[in-house]
Amino acid sequence: MEQYAAPLRELIEEFNKLPGIGNKTAQRLAFYVMNLPEEKSAKLANAIINAKKNIRYCSVCQNLSESEVCNICSNTARDHSIICVMESPRDIMQMERTNEYKGVYHVLHGAISPMDNITPDDIKIKELVARVAEGGIKEVIMATNPNLEGEATSMYISKLLKPFGVKVTKIAHGVPVGGELEFADEVTLGKALNWRVEI
Amino acid sequence: MEQYAAPLRELIEEFNKLPGIGNKTAQRLAFYVMNLPEEKSAKLANAIINAKKNIRYCSVCQNLSESEVCNICSNTARDHSIICVMESPRDIMQMERTNEYKGVYHVLHGAISPMDNITPDDIKIKELVARVAEGGIKEVIMATNPNLEGEATSMYISKLLKPFGVKVTKIAHGVPVGGELEFADEVTLGKALNWRVEI
Repeated sequence: MEQYAAPLRELIEEFNKLPGIGNKTAQRLAFYVMNLPEEKSAKLANAIINAKKNIRYCSVCQNLSESEVCNICSNTARDHSIICVMESPRDIMQMERTNEYKGVYHVLHGAISPMDNITPDDIKIKELVARVAEGGIKEVIMATNPNLEGEATSMYISKLLKPFGVKVTKIAHGVPVGGELEFADEVTLGKALNWRVEI
Repeated sequence: MEQYAAPLRELIEEFNKLPGIGNKTAQRLAFYVMNLPEEKSAKLANAIINAKKNIRYCSVCQNLSESEVCNICSNTARDHSIICVMESPRDIMQMERTNEYKGVYHVLHGAISPMDNITPDDIKIKELVARVAEGGIKEVIMATNPNLEGEATSMYISKLLKPFGVKVTKIAHGVPVGGELEFADEVTLGKALNWRVEI
């Protein structure tokens, strides 16, 4: 590394800071960028600056948005009486891909995790409570991650929302579609058994 | 993707263009950048612009350099009568790591490849010939990649340099240190046998 010219070394270090990008990959990326025509590398740099500058949280659901209110929240064709609560904007993408959900969302931007010093105040819980308090919400679907932090966050929020008389549900656990039972862990399989449905 | 705000979508697309970065990774990187404080994301963007602006080819060896002549070429402690010819600046890093080589380098920036329309004029061969023609060079070590293009480039250059009465060598093929013979391919093993040395 010390043999590289300083600006190149800095670029490698910057790439190296990205998640999942090790030193080798950072070098490969840096050399790739060095070989790009000027306008193409500028496009990458500008995309970074531009995204940071022009993206904010939707004032309704806290999803990443270019405008004050995001595309989903401003879409009148969607059912605004159902809110699906998710941990991150990426989860929304996954949910949208199912083409099953026609309600709106709320992004918490994390989960409660005492281990990591993330308290309820650090994530967008009060914004959710405020939305429900305003009225017009029939159901809140908890779709936090199926791990300890996600489940705890889900429980915490459902208790907060109970006083408003709103229906709070959570997405089902079960065996993944297309998977093989042999590889399903026993907890998932247990849940799948308990939550069985009539056919 | 279409649900993402435009600047975010563009950032994902830009990351997606990088080598070895698929759509999933591009999304992960983009969201990571979105969560960075403004000054950190700016640092990444600036490193890209800066590296492109301030890095040029060393006028002597064609390695990437911040200055007119690179660190290695301007280092008087190195043996300037031996030139190691390599395909890319990254190869130099690998060679430097061995701590075995004290000569200087020449970077071809590629290898001759008729399949990819890369002719001898497309890589830095004439610059190498000019260096050798200037005199003072005792040995040129060919260290192109051990594949078809690299070997052909090596042969082509050695023929060009013969008239100057300079010694042209190439790095040895053989079994990798720490490897197991069982996994060595037969061509490598054959070379290792032919190039055996007395112990």
